[in-house]
Amino acid sequence: MMNNNILPDKQIVKEVIDQSGIKSFSTASIRELVKLVNDLEKATGCKYVRMEMGVPGLPAAQIGVEAEIQSLKNGVASVYPDIEGIPELKVETSKFIKLFIDLDINPEGCIPTVGSTMGSMAAFIVANRTHQGRTGALFIDPGFPVQKMQVKMLGHDIFTFDLFNFRGKKLKEKLESVLSEGKVSSIIYSNPNNPTWMCLNEEELAIIGEMANKYDVVIIEDLAYFAMDFRTDYSHPGQPPFQPTAGRYTDNYILLISSSKAFSYAGQRLGMMAISDSLYHRIYPNLLNFYSTDKFGHAVVFGALYGLSAGSPHSAQHGLCAILKAVNNGNYNFLNIVKEYGEKACIMKPLFTNNGFDIAYDTDIDKPIADGFYFTISYKGMKSGELLEKLLYHGISAITLNITGSNRSDGLRACVSCTLRDQFGDLENRLRQFKLNNPV
Amino acid sequence: MMNNNILPDKQIVKEVIDQSGIKSFSTASIRELVKLVNDLEKATGCKYVRMEMGVPGLPAAQIGVEAEIQSLKNGVASVYPDIEGIPELKVETSKFIKLFIDLDINPEGCIPTVGSTMGSMAAFIVANRTHQGRTGALFIDPGFPVQKMQVKMLGHDIFTFDLFNFRGKKLKEKLESVLSEGKVSSIIYSNPNNPTWMCLNEEELAIIGEMANKYDVVIIEDLAYFAMDFRTDYSHPGQPPFQPTAGRYTDNYILLISSSKAFSYAGQRLGMMAISDSLYHRIYPNLLNFYSTDKFGHAVVFGALYGLSAGSPHSAQHGLCAILKAVNNGNYNFLNIVKEYGEKACIMKPLFTNNGFDIAYDTDIDKPIADGFYFTISYKGMKSGELLEKLLYHGISAITLNITGSNRSDGLRACVSCTLRDQFGDLENRLRQFKLNNPV
Repeated sequence: MMNNNILPDKQIVKEVIDQSGIKSFSTASIRELVKLVNDLEKATGCKYVRMEMGVPGLPAAQIGVEAEIQSLKNGVASVYPDIEGIPELKVETSKFIKLFIDLDINPEGCIPTVGSTMGSMAAFIVANRTHQGRTGALFIDPGFPVQKMQVKMLGHDIFTFDLFNFRGKKLKEKLESVLSEGKVSSIIYSNPNNPTWMCLNEEELAIIGEMANKYDVVIIEDLAYFAMDFRTDYSHPGQPPFQPTAGRYTDNYILLISSSKAFSYAGQRLGMMAISDSLYHRIYPNLLNFYSTDKFGHAVVFGALYGLSAGSPHSAQHGLCAILKAVNNGNYNFLNIVKEYGEKACIMKPLFTNNGFDIAYDTDIDKPIADGFYFTISYKGMKSGELLEKLLYHGISAITLNITGSNRSDGLRACVSCTLRDQFGDLENRLRQFKLNNPV
Repeated sequence: MMNNNILPDKQIVKEVIDQSGIKSFSTASIRELVKLVNDLEKATGCKYVRMEMGVPGLPAAQIGVEAEIQSLKNGVASVYPDIEGIPELKVETSKFIKLFIDLDINPEGCIPTVGSTMGSMAAFIVANRTHQGRTGALFIDPGFPVQKMQVKMLGHDIFTFDLFNFRGKKLKEKLESVLSEGKVSSIIYSNPNNPTWMCLNEEELAIIGEMANKYDVVIIEDLAYFAMDFRTDYSHPGQPPFQPTAGRYTDNYILLISSSKAFSYAGQRLGMMAISDSLYHRIYPNLLNFYSTDKFGHAVVFGALYGLSAGSPHSAQHGLCAILKAVNNGNYNFLNIVKEYGEKACIMKPLFTNNGFDIAYDTDIDKPIADGFYFTISYKGMKSGELLEKLLYHGISAITLNITGSNRSDGLRACVSCTLRDQFGDLENRLRQFKLNNPV
């Protein structure tokens, strides 16, 4: 039985940590921490405030579930889906992009992938082969560790810098200095940013687009947290303001739109990759060393996506199609649902800052960082590994920023999704206790 | 409206072919042919005997569909599946392998993949990195073209020979000659073989196992057409005879078990990859250049599969789990259902051979090739491209063996799955007409 009112027993926490095999908290992976916290909850009987996982904390969009069930009843389970995706999903995705981002992308270039994870994999495995002599991807960091894993797995190079030090106009000089070396094939970033929730502004997106044109590199824009900069209301289809994008400033782009967070659809592994019309039809002779074609879009669909999984699960395509149709028609306001994440962040962040914590990545240049799915924390005088370990003794979990490409050695990422509102009291009590135990 | 009794109009067929953009029938891909035959049917009004596609021609196993629906109602769509697969599916897969192959593989090494396509991709991306200096995969050909595409896409080398010329004891010498060069990391073959339906016998599988041990290479055994050598009844769980495998002769193996054909479950993209216990825990220091671990199994699951798609679709895992449970309990005899393919082949092959055709790959060493999902054909004096084109004028479609790694330049692969039994009369009439038009 869980006892929520007390801190976990110190001695038991110590034993579980000692047995976990985790050598350093500063570099422990998300999965290692998930397992550790499961074990801690079991051993101590204490329900943790779990902020280590970036998983949706809401039920799946019901309209998608119902459409999947109907398609299964209609017999799709036996039928190979087209590699390029079912036509109606391609059309709805194209419409969604027009209505919420105000970009025009032909349905041909709107392609379902097995999660946005496969979207970035397919993007790297083609985009990093466009030019002989170029060797890898530039990460505008901090970022999602899995994407670096993908690039390493492919044997490509990883280039990186921490965006926080190069906001606004400074971004141009930094990008020039890296890109002018001629080694970068693609640039990847997430916006809003996982883990820091920084949001690139129009000036920065324009710089990225300009640099993509000047150095002829492919932008991979990860919109995993689509339109979740809740400072601006992007929820009205076809009406400004629209989700910001570098796609307004260059034709060399791929968008990755996840259904995991926006539609709480993580289980069925279905994302959408959208390739600009220009890039889709662009010819790169170097692709012939790896694919049967020199056309970018053709290499992505009939090379990468065919070779990675021979298409995306059939019923899930019908599910996402129904969701997008309802969103596009204005019948389903998904942002009204997920703004719960922003509202929770707005309550939770002060619980930390009132107890001696700082927000590690605290500003978007000149304004406070938005409230959303993640925020970052630090505590005076503590390195990230020490801070994480001490929080675990206080019934709170997170991950360090060390594994995200951050320059900071003292920060943690906290995810709001799995913390229930009825745990806020526990969180506050535990943080107060933490402050008492760790006077600055 | 389709008119089944006549041949398609020659002039219209010519026009459609001219407009198709297909430059050479000998190297046209499966997808190009599918599109061409769709266009031919539309333009001519003639219903083709379609033998170009290797797709299931039966409805999906209903027990799987129902379990998927139930799991969706239970809310799995929002929940990330574990990368390594849901525990109950891992257990049922391990049992299935014991009951039908008589191999012992721990559930830990039984891992769902997004189709067996992802299974082979994950196998290549790890197994081809086990030894520095080794450069690629050996294909015991003919084979499935997509697997060669995967290896090329990864930038690895493709080694190949045509099995037909090295059956029985000859296989050992041939494998020695290739493997002793020290460049091969993995060996892949399908059994029964796509496209020829050759089946490796125990002597050959023992040779493969012996060579895998001697040269320390990983065997990737593709069981896409599991237990479909209908000359032997493999359908009784836990009772011999069992599906033959090289896994009886080496511990260096990975099995790929597709649900697409055995359970007619192609649409949901879920296969099972099974890694031997020994290989799963094997340490290869060279893996650290590409993964965060030197352990083979850990690199496959938390490297390759995490990086390719972050796990396999959640509801489909519940679907396959229910199917395997019923199969393992003896409540669902899947081979009784799919033996329809063998029965159709038994009727269709004589329609060809009675009209001047030969079975291109006609024997398993000393006995006639089995009846199954595919068979191969040739026609005296004709190269494959010419034969395919002429068959298209007679309302029949197939693919050439040129794209499968075959040594033969005169063969076609014919798939029985999409030919309806009520088309057998048409097929016979068309073949008789073909013979009249092409006297030997």
